Amino acid sequence: MPKVAIVMGSTSDWPTMQQAAIMLKELGVDFDAKVVSAHRTPKLLTEFSESAADEGYHAIIAGAGGAAHLPGMIAAHTHLPVFGVPVRSSQLSGLDSLLSIVQMPKGVAVGTLAIGEAGAANAGLMAAQVIALHDEAVRAGIIAFRQKQTEKVLANADLELPQ
Amino acid sequence: MPKVAIVMGSTSDWPTMQQAAIMLKELGVDFDAKVVSAHRTPKLLTEFSESAADEGYHAIIAGAGGAAHLPGMIAAHTHLPVFGVPVRSSQLSGLDSLLSIVQMPKGVAVGTLAIGEAGAANAGLMAAQVIALHDEAVRAGIIAFRQKQTEKVLANADLELPQ
Amino acid sequence: MPKVAIVMGSTSDWPTMQQAAIMLKELGVDFDAKVVSAHRTPKLLTEFSESAADEGYHAIIAGAGGAAHLPGMIAAHTHLPVFGVPVRSSQLSGLDSLLSIVQMPKGVAVGTLAIGEAGAANAGLMAAQVIALHDEAVRAGIIAFRQKQTEKVLANADLELPQ
Amino acid sequence: MPKVAIVMGSTSDWPTMQQAAIMLKELGVDFDAKVVSAHRTPKLLTEFSESAADEGYHAIIAGAGGAAHLPGMIAAHTHLPVFGVPVRSSQLSGLDSLLSIVQMPKGVAVGTLAIGEAGAANAGLMAAQVIALHDEAVRAGIIAFRQKQTEKVLANADLELPQ
Amino acid sequence: MPKVAIVMGSTSDWPTMQQAAIMLKELGVDFDAKVVSAHRTPKLLTEFSESAADEGYHAIIAGAGGAAHLPGMIAAHTHLPVFGVPVRSSQLSGLDSLLSIVQMPKGVAVGTLAIGEAGAANAGLMAAQVIALHDEAVRAGIIAFRQKQTEKVLANADLELPQ
Amino acid sequence: MPKVAIVMGSTSDWPTMQQAAIMLKELGVDFDAKVVSAHRTPKLLTEFSESAADEGYHAIIAGAGGAAHLPGMIAAHTHLPVFGVPVRSSQLSGLDSLLSIVQMPKGVAVGTLAIGEAGAANAGLMAAQVIALHDEAVRAGIIAFRQKQTEKVLANADLELPQ
Amino acid sequence: MPKVAIVMGSTSDWPTMQQAAIMLKELGVDFDAKVVSAHRTPKLLTEFSESAADEGYHAIIAGAGGAAHLPGMIAAHTHLPVFGVPVRSSQLSGLDSLLSIVQMPKGVAVGTLAIGEAGAANAGLMAAQVIALHDEAVRAGIIAFRQKQTEKVLANADLELPQ
Amino acid sequence: MPKVAIVMGSTSDWPTMQQAAIMLKELGVDFDAKVVSAHRTPKLLTEFSESAADEGYHAIIAGAGGAAHLPGMIAAHTHLPVFGVPVRSSQLSGLDSLLSIVQMPKGVAVGTLAIGEAGAANAGLMAAQVIALHDEAVRAGIIAFRQKQTEKVLANADLELPQ
Repeated sequence: MPKVAIVMGSTSDWPTMQQAAIMLKELGVDFDAKVVSAHRTPKLLTEFSESAADEGYHAIIAGAGGAAHLPGMIAAHTHLPVFGVPVRSSQLSGLDSLLSIVQMPKGVAVGTLAIGEAGAANAGLMAAQVIALHDEAVRAGIIAFRQKQTEKVLANADLELPQ
Repeated sequence: MPKVAIVMGSTSDWPTMQQAAIMLKELGVDFDAKVVSAHRTPKLLTEFSESAADEGYHAIIAGAGGAAHLPGMIAAHTHLPVFGVPVRSSQLSGLDSLLSIVQMPKGVAVGTLAIGEAGAANAGLMAAQVIALHDEAVRAGIIAFRQKQTEKVLANADLELPQ
Repeated sequence: MPKVAIVMGSTSDWPTMQQAAIMLKELGVDFDAKVVSAHRTPKLLTEFSESAADEGYHAIIAGAGGAAHLPGMIAAHTHLPVFGVPVRSSQLSGLDSLLSIVQMPKGVAVGTLAIGEAGAANAGLMAAQVIALHDEAVRAGIIAFRQKQTEKVLANADLELPQ
Repeated sequence: MPKVAIVMGSTSDWPTMQQAAIMLKELGVDFDAKVVSAHRTPKLLTEFSESAADEGYHAIIAGAGGAAHLPGMIAAHTHLPVFGVPVRSSQLSGLDSLLSIVQMPKGVAVGTLAIGEAGAANAGLMAAQVIALHDEAVRAGIIAFRQKQTEKVLANADLELPQ
Repeated sequence: MPKVAIVMGSTSDWPTMQQAAIMLKELGVDFDAKVVSAHRTPKLLTEFSESAADEGYHAIIAGAGGAAHLPGMIAAHTHLPVFGVPVRSSQLSGLDSLLSIVQMPKGVAVGTLAIGEAGAANAGLMAAQVIALHDEAVRAGIIAFRQKQTEKVLANADLELPQ
Repeated sequence: MPKVAIVMGSTSDWPTMQQAAIMLKELGVDFDAKVVSAHRTPKLLTEFSESAADEGYHAIIAGAGGAAHLPGMIAAHTHLPVFGVPVRSSQLSGLDSLLSIVQMPKGVAVGTLAIGEAGAANAGLMAAQVIALHDEAVRAGIIAFRQKQTEKVLANADLELPQ
Repeated sequence: MPKVAIVMGSTSDWPTMQQAAIMLKELGVDFDAKVVSAHRTPKLLTEFSESAADEGYHAIIAGAGGAAHLPGMIAAHTHLPVFGVPVRSSQLSGLDSLLSIVQMPKGVAVGTLAIGEAGAANAGLMAAQVIALHDEAVRAGIIAFRQKQTEKVLANADLELPQ
Repeated sequence: MPKVAIVMGSTSDWPTMQQAAIMLKELGVDFDAKVVSAHRTPKLLTEFSESAADEGYHAIIAGAGGAAHLPGMIAAHTHLPVFGVPVRSSQLSGLDSLLSIVQMPKGVAVGTLAIGEAGAANAGLMAAQVIALHDEAVRAGIIAFRQKQTEKVLANADLELPQ
């Protein structure tokens, strides 16, 4: 049974949001990915987020761009941790997405990641870190992933000047 | 029967949003004012905005600050015109409120006014301008208001230098 | 007789502003589209906006970029609702256009939409929403359009990871 | 045994960060609060974050302002979920704090909350939401807190115009 | 006969704009100061700016805040040099005023000064510098003013540390 | 004898700054164009600007990007009017150039134009407007140019929707 | 013989810049402090910076606000290391000062510190760190200062919740 | 023995950071270049920066992008002067990198250069300027470099208008 739901406002967000999926897959965490639009399918948003805890999810990753209301509105309907990904917008480089997601009022929280693909990947990592608190296999997966990326940096010593 | 609903995310928005009420009163337009929070009363938001047209409203004015989702989420549930007021936030001067309200995706629209009190007053004016299309008394009220403010500028000629 | 006027500062704004036209056409609202420049044809601006109500328009959509004065200056001459579209500028991504349009002083209002094409389309939608208050066919058109876009999101479930 | 650590770069951050403590207390979650500076006590930072999982913490809340490196550097040393709070800076309103915390590279994640006190309170809420996944009492506490704040909004109907 | 007109959108701009008047007075340049609002008195704006050259003005200083359309709209009606002063706005620190004034399209120019009082004083200085091209007394006044401020800096050597 | 000097920090600014030259040529104003770098040829800057009035120039147009010190430093050495053009920078879209040029302290003024090519063209127009105060031919040239651009807008009526 | 010169554009910058002086004093580095204005005393600027190396200075600290040209113009005249301090401006919170100082073109460098008092203190620290490379007493002073501030953080454990 | 260390968070920063290397090479300063990631190799960061002074380095150049913690964290572990280069980020044009590096708190300093390649080259120049205080050959190299770039500007007089 999937532990993490990845939702996004539009299929056009998938190239960004699939980084969350790829990260979860690498860390051994099952997930669902679906399109839920705050503005175009508000009823689906309500149904999805009200039932998310009962569906067995442990975390929700929500990505949206521009006036990005999806993560905050999901958080308004559930007590599950919600992680928000500001998708890069075509006009203001995602600054609008970032502020729309992160500046939530007291009482309804969204843990916000970086703009774009790095943020999506890290939303997957955050969700896995939450699950790893009670899942040794995922914890081992995270530790291995972190170790691997450390080694990759250490191995990378070839900085050559142009002749 | 009130033609305009003024809603806001919190009573702390009322000092700003009452400028909309004052403007509507001056222009002879009946209104209701109430607190509806996108994040803390999402069900009320849905009920309010789904029934707003049947309640007889012709326009909705919605004000919110920070990650301001209220105007956009109301617009997602109604075909009435929605006017959004970015309430000045304590941290980023309302730039977050402005971008969260104005940068709506194609298909769900919010007519956004200026940050703060001027924007709230102008949201009242906009709503009145919509109603004035089919209401001669309100139209006369707007024309008189505009004439009065023109005269006020013209009468103001006392620009004195400090001695 | 057209109910909506779409005006813009330059023909170079048409690729953006035609999204308003396309939306109005889809929703069954007649419109005119013309170039009126605040800075290069100020007399035309005055004539156009002073006579707009008598011409039978119910709403004006105005798009401009950079120091975008067109929407606000039109609003200064008419009691019709004016919707402003910040056209993406080549230098500051439309942030200058947005602030020049939305930050109107109390007493002259412009309902501002998002930067660029989404905003232009939504300006068409806003104008239609105003007209729909007294036009059942347009109201039905809006409801159908909104229903269609909801269905389109619901039907879009194919989120596939790269192999 | 405390489940959450609240750390901050300076005692001057405590007026902001104590909102996290107050929230955790309200939700029935034990916590420690301490000063750990990324720049002035880097060894303490390393020791604290490397041992945090073994100490039994389930989440770390880290607040800092300006070039805010604390949350990201803690996240670099632990697989526990880290929640970052951008403390309002005296010069740039916390925009520098926000960008320094949220724009983490792929592979090391910080779930970032809003600038200032609302963000600190929500960091407490996020940490509690994580713990609530396996702690019914905390889950009940969150649901009660959310219910209470909904009721508080619903009860607040006294919006009076100045005479 | 005054050579410079100082205009502003509102009497509330006078505390800022009087710095232009004080500078012109110091440099021996006659001026008029008046309120002309782009949005509230558009006809007055047209009349004033169309007749400004015939009135004998050699330069126009225009100050406005927020969506500051006054300088650009005056420039649209005259071939006189127009100098714009972004008045500090209450919400966005005058960044909106600055962008609304400076980002004029090709073909209609506004020479823009700094936000606020320094900019207003410098608009007076700029106008005087233009007039000084054909007026030796004003040129001498500017050279003396500049000399005096240089001497003031040179004389200021008392930088004492707190004990 | 040229009346206007166009200076810029680097030959890489010429594609932008030549718009000033083209405008001046169209309006019948002689000019010189040269590279003077505030940072790399500070002595040349001093010599050029101290002698500019004696050389017979009536206005100086200065363009620079990034930490753009050229216009302000020239203004520090001359009583001629200086018009500054913020050249679009590769990193921050010219916002750094704009603020570095426009935010001059009281007592040394730069009349700043828009970022990039439009600003360069308008700097040429501003300089011509200054010269036109005492030169009927240039005044006629400006009036003709403005008339021509008005006609061009009025003639442009072909806004066609895609089929 | 003083090793560090602290210069600033105006005596009004001294409350900020004296933090550099206080830091240097604490670290046992002699310094001079003087007012040199890029815009109002350009000749003094040239003389000061051309002779600074011969005067025996090892580093120059320069603070300025708004269109802050002082640090860059000093760097243009000397091969000594120049450290720039963006003084908080009254309008744009020092963002203009920061960009005007830091965005120097290739070939003339300014090592820029934080906006305001923290930046001024750190400019003193940077200058001392440069001098410490060949001065054991200063190096010992820096190490002691850093140790002291570490201890101060470690000693600060009294984080008490309000009752 | 190399006097300068160039470090960066990722090999993807090398195209930018090699400008520092090229500058140091041109000025006759030996250097090492290596990848040290604040977030992915925090132990290496500690080891490298704690031992940097003993290794004989006189200055450290550190480049990073986004939430750029590398320069500040290195500075936290050493009394050597640290120069920071904000690498242009893919999302926010390096504004996030700049603020994350420059806004250091009092007591730990980073001398920050411009965003991107110009900043990297200037970091090399700054480091050389520090070394030149006690190394005549490097001082001669800097003076020659500066002379050469001045001559290059002076020689560049071919500004031709398009026909």
